[in-house]
Amino acid sequence: MTTQNFRIEKDTMGDVQVPADKFWGAQTQRSTQNFKIGGDRFPREMIRALGILKKCAALTNQSLNLLDGKKAEVIVAAADEVIAGKLDAHFPLVVWQTGSGTQTNMNANEVIANRAMNMMGLNLPSKDIHPNDDVNKGQSSNDTFPTAMHIAVAEQVHHRLIPMMEKLHKALVVKQNEFKDIVKIGRTHLMDATPLTLGQEFSGYATQMKHAIQRVKNTLPHLHELALGGTAVGTGLNTHPKFAVQAAEAIAKETKIPFVSAENKFEALASHDALVEVSGALNSAAVSLMKIANDIRLLGSGPRSGIGELNLPENEPGSSIMPGKVNPTQSEAMTMVCAQVMGNNVAVSVGGSNGHFELNVFKPLIVFNVLNSIRLIADACESFTDHCVSGIEANKKQIQKHVEQSLMLVTSLNPHIGYDNAAKIAKTAHKNGTTLREEAINLGLLTGEQFDKIVRPEDMTGPR
Amino acid sequence: MTTQNFRIEKDTMGDVQVPADKFWGAQTQRSTQNFKIGGDRFPREMIRALGILKKCAALTNQSLNLLDGKKAEVIVAAADEVIAGKLDAHFPLVVWQTGSGTQTNMNANEVIANRAMNMMGLNLPSKDIHPNDDVNKGQSSNDTFPTAMHIAVAEQVHHRLIPMMEKLHKALVVKQNEFKDIVKIGRTHLMDATPLTLGQEFSGYATQMKHAIQRVKNTLPHLHELALGGTAVGTGLNTHPKFAVQAAEAIAKETKIPFVSAENKFEALASHDALVEVSGALNSAAVSLMKIANDIRLLGSGPRSGIGELNLPENEPGSSIMPGKVNPTQSEAMTMVCAQVMGNNVAVSVGGSNGHFELNVFKPLIVFNVLNSIRLIADACESFTDHCVSGIEANKKQIQKHVEQSLMLVTSLNPHIGYDNAAKIAKTAHKNGTTLREEAINLGLLTGEQFDKIVRPEDMTGPR
Amino acid sequence: MTTQNFRIEKDTMGDVQVPADKFWGAQTQRSTQNFKIGGDRFPREMIRALGILKKCAALTNQSLNLLDGKKAEVIVAAADEVIAGKLDAHFPLVVWQTGSGTQTNMNANEVIANRAMNMMGLNLPSKDIHPNDDVNKGQSSNDTFPTAMHIAVAEQVHHRLIPMMEKLHKALVVKQNEFKDIVKIGRTHLMDATPLTLGQEFSGYATQMKHAIQRVKNTLPHLHELALGGTAVGTGLNTHPKFAVQAAEAIAKETKIPFVSAENKFEALASHDALVEVSGALNSAAVSLMKIANDIRLLGSGPRSGIGELNLPENEPGSSIMPGKVNPTQSEAMTMVCAQVMGNNVAVSVGGSNGHFELNVFKPLIVFNVLNSIRLIADACESFTDHCVSGIEANKKQIQKHVEQSLMLVTSLNPHIGYDNAAKIAKTAHKNGTTLREEAINLGLLTGEQFDKIVRPEDMTGPR
Amino acid sequence: MTTQNFRIEKDTMGDVQVPADKFWGAQTQRSTQNFKIGGDRFPREMIRALGILKKCAALTNQSLNLLDGKKAEVIVAAADEVIAGKLDAHFPLVVWQTGSGTQTNMNANEVIANRAMNMMGLNLPSKDIHPNDDVNKGQSSNDTFPTAMHIAVAEQVHHRLIPMMEKLHKALVVKQNEFKDIVKIGRTHLMDATPLTLGQEFSGYATQMKHAIQRVKNTLPHLHELALGGTAVGTGLNTHPKFAVQAAEAIAKETKIPFVSAENKFEALASHDALVEVSGALNSAAVSLMKIANDIRLLGSGPRSGIGELNLPENEPGSSIMPGKVNPTQSEAMTMVCAQVMGNNVAVSVGGSNGHFELNVFKPLIVFNVLNSIRLIADACESFTDHCVSGIEANKKQIQKHVEQSLMLVTSLNPHIGYDNAAKIAKTAHKNGTTLREEAINLGLLTGEQFDKIVRPEDMTGPR
Repeated sequence: MTTQNFRIEKDTMGDVQVPADKFWGAQTQRSTQNFKIGGDRFPREMIRALGILKKCAALTNQSLNLLDGKKAEVIVAAADEVIAGKLDAHFPLVVWQTGSGTQTNMNANEVIANRAMNMMGLNLPSKDIHPNDDVNKGQSSNDTFPTAMHIAVAEQVHHRLIPMMEKLHKALVVKQNEFKDIVKIGRTHLMDATPLTLGQEFSGYATQMKHAIQRVKNTLPHLHELALGGTAVGTGLNTHPKFAVQAAEAIAKETKIPFVSAENKFEALASHDALVEVSGALNSAAVSLMKIANDIRLLGSGPRSGIGELNLPENEPGSSIMPGKVNPTQSEAMTMVCAQVMGNNVAVSVGGSNGHFELNVFKPLIVFNVLNSIRLIADACESFTDHCVSGIEANKKQIQKHVEQSLMLVTSLNPHIGYDNAAKIAKTAHKNGTTLREEAINLGLLTGEQFDKIVRPEDMTGPR
Repeated sequence: MTTQNFRIEKDTMGDVQVPADKFWGAQTQRSTQNFKIGGDRFPREMIRALGILKKCAALTNQSLNLLDGKKAEVIVAAADEVIAGKLDAHFPLVVWQTGSGTQTNMNANEVIANRAMNMMGLNLPSKDIHPNDDVNKGQSSNDTFPTAMHIAVAEQVHHRLIPMMEKLHKALVVKQNEFKDIVKIGRTHLMDATPLTLGQEFSGYATQMKHAIQRVKNTLPHLHELALGGTAVGTGLNTHPKFAVQAAEAIAKETKIPFVSAENKFEALASHDALVEVSGALNSAAVSLMKIANDIRLLGSGPRSGIGELNLPENEPGSSIMPGKVNPTQSEAMTMVCAQVMGNNVAVSVGGSNGHFELNVFKPLIVFNVLNSIRLIADACESFTDHCVSGIEANKKQIQKHVEQSLMLVTSLNPHIGYDNAAKIAKTAHKNGTTLREEAINLGLLTGEQFDKIVRPEDMTGPR
Repeated sequence: MTTQNFRIEKDTMGDVQVPADKFWGAQTQRSTQNFKIGGDRFPREMIRALGILKKCAALTNQSLNLLDGKKAEVIVAAADEVIAGKLDAHFPLVVWQTGSGTQTNMNANEVIANRAMNMMGLNLPSKDIHPNDDVNKGQSSNDTFPTAMHIAVAEQVHHRLIPMMEKLHKALVVKQNEFKDIVKIGRTHLMDATPLTLGQEFSGYATQMKHAIQRVKNTLPHLHELALGGTAVGTGLNTHPKFAVQAAEAIAKETKIPFVSAENKFEALASHDALVEVSGALNSAAVSLMKIANDIRLLGSGPRSGIGELNLPENEPGSSIMPGKVNPTQSEAMTMVCAQVMGNNVAVSVGGSNGHFELNVFKPLIVFNVLNSIRLIADACESFTDHCVSGIEANKKQIQKHVEQSLMLVTSLNPHIGYDNAAKIAKTAHKNGTTLREEAINLGLLTGEQFDKIVRPEDMTGPR
Repeated sequence: MTTQNFRIEKDTMGDVQVPADKFWGAQTQRSTQNFKIGGDRFPREMIRALGILKKCAALTNQSLNLLDGKKAEVIVAAADEVIAGKLDAHFPLVVWQTGSGTQTNMNANEVIANRAMNMMGLNLPSKDIHPNDDVNKGQSSNDTFPTAMHIAVAEQVHHRLIPMMEKLHKALVVKQNEFKDIVKIGRTHLMDATPLTLGQEFSGYATQMKHAIQRVKNTLPHLHELALGGTAVGTGLNTHPKFAVQAAEAIAKETKIPFVSAENKFEALASHDALVEVSGALNSAAVSLMKIANDIRLLGSGPRSGIGELNLPENEPGSSIMPGKVNPTQSEAMTMVCAQVMGNNVAVSVGGSNGHFELNVFKPLIVFNVLNSIRLIADACESFTDHCVSGIEANKKQIQKHVEQSLMLVTSLNPHIGYDNAAKIAKTAHKNGTTLREEAINLGLLTGEQFDKIVRPEDMTGPR
């Protein structure tokens, strides 16, 4: 670009050239130059959250008579544009910057100040509305950034994660009911075991999801705590005594999420245990979902040389070389997502454990991974529900075949002839490739009538 | 050993030589031969839990008229010895065995059966009391083992983990109060920042522990659910319809922990999400404790060329070559423990995610790691409290020196002269190695009186 | 969009609407509809690698007389555009799709086929050049995708990772030499210890990097093995017997990297151990870099109340509230990167361990994380070198002060008066706040002259 | 215990009561009191390694005329007992102690000194042979402990890990050859795919192991570097200039492992990258082994309602409730081991990344986990070979049935009739439950003779 496309912005270190068509200022520009690392820009959710925060801070400062009405008005108007995503092109910074997120907080301060002045018809550069003294008034990156982290994560948890986990849970319950009368062989250690209904099998998955949702909900009380008002080190230096509580109320009102001012601001700046906790709940959800998705693809394996008890929706051709092949691709996407979330949890844990003194400086890493894990789990739950679970059908013929030939039906004989005799029947039938009934009679342990009365798969799916 | 030291025990696969002085039977013996892996025996807590379970199952079967009174009596007596630890020498199996824990469940069945018959004066081998038909009556490894896992973990959570975390929490609160008037420099990004009190700093640690304890408590409802009554695949085949609930009640009574029968037995056998959740809470606790222990050793670094704001208890000579050296060894043990717990959480997550169909077969791995993490966190909290936190003293002289010379006191000038002017003062003082006061006057921004009135560290530890 | 903006493409499942201005076909389109998961598109490096592979496969098929010259020519021309990045807008798929990467392989096949026909002046849709029969000729997703994974990763390892790690290594060696005569206090357990030179301290970092580079190089032989020629399950069905070796040679020629045909194609499809190995080397590098970056920020802590032995480059204002604050932001970006890479390694390991039978279906996850880790480490090494290491200066005054007052200089007395007497001197000086020399004389253990002769920091930086 | 069972030992902090029948001294005793954490004692391998080191250090000091011959002789004699395991009862310390391992180094110094004096007929307590001045002569915990870590790990890698991995590798190669002519169905995405031989499938496993062994061997050069001679901070203060090299030679001679003196002692004390690297190789091995063990149990699933292509050895009864059940328990032990090793790798990585300045203080954690992972992998490879792999048999009937009915045999038609036509055949046969041959003829695409000539599973296991 040629020089005329730049303007000169300034911070406490001096002059910096900034693209003329961008609202960011000197500190944002420095960050683009000093941190050419990776390709991950700050996620939209965080930009939005900073907009919410800056708006609510301005309103609170105004109501406390710390910011004049005109300034507050334009700051709010500019912040509203940030919230709505209209200024995303003015947030160029990557995740891999200063560990406090200061540069992204300053990016928000600069963009809002410059856009506000632009709305007022002022020429840039100008500091009539000052990024630090006005937009960041009564704030520090050290309390705003963690506040925005909580806003962004809580919005996603409430609006995407829980609804999509619930969507999957409901779809599993539908299948649980749909399949409640289909008696099938159970498998433990991957080996044939006693029967259960396909509905019971799905009830296990549904229950896993139910608990997974509850675990996410358990993280909300701490997540709803906001650091705002702690400023630089948690003490609240340079804020009004009422700022913390009123700003949290304003944010709660703006977002309709019950945010509160954090009970202890020192903890809220120096650690991110609340987000490590969210990440832990996501890790547990990933563990559950990996199990469910694995089972479903194993049960759908085949079509002719696998287990083949489920028919999964055929969404797309599965192979570039094998014609007619269809694969359990939704399970594959889901299990890849789960592996990523398990890895992200380690990244978050390492970051969370390495804070020093009054500030944890792994903030961008932590929020990036938590938001990423939320999005992955939410999107994958939605996709898995829509493109897999809802369309699953039972292959009743195959299921019937498997349950009939199972040797583990012998278990219902235990109370009648004892474990050791029952074992004898099963082992003989296994060796001879015969049926349990044949060998029970051959071994003289039961008559055919007795056998038929006791060994009924449909009676084996509950206590008697 | 010579032959006369053995007796011949038998299972469905045939005869096995067993040491004559041991109560275990054929299946236990096979396991010792087939699994010579690692050195980790099943932990005492699990042996005890199996004893509790077998006792309560026998009592329940008896009350349901499924087991005769005499048998129940000796089974209970033998199980009581297992609970008390008197038969630990008869539990030789390692963790790295079958993934269902069947071999350890059979170990319990065999030892209890044989010890019971031994109490009755019967000669071994005998199956008058049968390990499967009597001791394991109405049970499967698949429901007993996860039940024992929950009993063992819940006992340790209630009796060791929470009390020791609370002990540390209390010790931190004591210090928070003791240090509440000591104004010190804050540090963000490891760099000098605005002041706070040492009590405020410790309040952050105390709050971290408070939340960590709450996170552990959040895991209890799911942990209190017992799989017993699900038998082989969750259906409850071969149990009495009342067995599950009554056995859970018996276990609750025996342990004084509010255990209940699991709402869904399929989930309880096929997944171990409840324990993955506990492991997640331990991982979060490790993250918090790593931060706290790190801070404390950094604040105690020196004695002459470090930060030196805390004096830590001098527990032992620290070096084999450097005379007089004393080290923050309790922080070191704690941070090593935290690293282990973070690793264990990954092991548990991998195990939890890899279950198939009706049974997760990473059970021994999961319970081994969860119990290990609990013990490590509990023991380390106790040791860290007793040998470090409780004895911490503030080095007031050093703290005073640091706060006085800090350039970041300049922050309180922001509301008076603006961020940019304040920055000018700080930068000039930094460059010249002078004081803020000198440069504020030199730069003509404030008089000495104004400066002294505004820049008071003791006024900077809260909003004004 | 309105209907006229679409054309109808077709695959074995039927018709699909595709945007008229895009070269992708039916299968790509299905993937965009079935996998709305996360925001991570396939990285450029993989698109490029698929272009290289398709080009080399076409050339090889042509030279084996399996593909006619005209077709080969346009396929190569279209593939060249893929390589150069001109068709990136035609690769819309995300990472979270089928675990074999089939959809992205088909994306490449479809785009190359359609662009080739477009170059020939044919109207789309057309199958004159068939995505499966021509572009994918003698190939399967199952061998092309892992081949592209190795090409993409190897190019990044050779062209970015190793050069940037070497750049950092060299910068550390420069500092090692620059600081070779600056005697400073050592610190073990964060506590004052015996002296060393600052150059020696940096030599440790440089040596860590040297080994880290070697570890990356150790992964190359396996990484250079290409799966191509294995087709669907590793057998090479539907390829020419010479295809595998000749195609690998063509790729080696195209990339100037010594790729070879994999010795065992079954391993190359069913596992990704070669990439797990690369990820492990990156994890080790992250461990090293975390240590180095941590040390540097700790040594630069202050400026007045920290250790302050290093002056780090002041790149940007550090605080939105604390004027004049400068932070070790490059260390922060680096340590965040390291945490991410450690997490990515877990994701890769989970994915690598979960393959089944003839195909690992965590391929997109694995390559995405490995490429991401490479980019992060490479970029962070570059940034850390340019914006931190190269500009580090020693704060000689502070270093001198620390070494002079250290009590651990006492260690050099051990061979003369024994460990116990030396300890007595150090402990007394510590207690009294005096110097070692004073207390050595007071305790009658040495004369001042003896002390001065033995206790010389500059003589303590090596064996005597 | 009563008082007469104690003697009074002494260190620089004062008097300590020590059990009269134990050779340890004051510092060991303090550690037992200050670190009641967990139950993990230092592993035997480390005690042995410290014995080797102390012996070789004494011999080197003697040959350099720094230690008189008589003292050296008894120190060596006592160290020999430590090496042989005769004094293990005198090493009571746990892993969770000081992060430098100083306490265990002092434990070795104290036990060797006291046992040496005991051999000389001296009464304890005595310092005629001084634990610091004599046994630890020219050493520091900071160089001895990492040296012992490398000795212990290298001995286990050479003597257990590599041999047991090679044992498994060989057993897999035996099966590869044994099964080379058995044509079976391939499976990708768990779905039926084109055929391969069972020998080819096992060749993939064998190749994975081959690479896994090579990866372990790649770690040896760095692992063979010994820190000894670096003393407190890497400078070698208080050692003879020839000590480092000569002591390393002595250790190489004693162990018959090509140990050398570390090129850079600062790196060798401050980081444990060499062991992080070993852990990474173990993690990769775990990833491979998890895949292999999973495949084997899936292929052996059934016996009647699973895949059932392999018959695994029946080692023990598998269920306490289901008579006659046999489970793939060796795969279960192996996969649990793999999960543990993956977790241990995270613990090691966290520990490795958290070193500060001249000393990493996660040493006991790191060596404990690396030794544990080695033992687990080595033992599990041995057990898996002996009790599973070597006894695997092919279920040819089932294999034949699967390959015959597979729809993916259609792939060999691609070069003849094109992908789209081939897909039509497969899809129709799938829909109608018919054979490929029938539908190929019905659709008029091939005659029966043509079909029979092209579609031959035995011709599909390689390129043509």
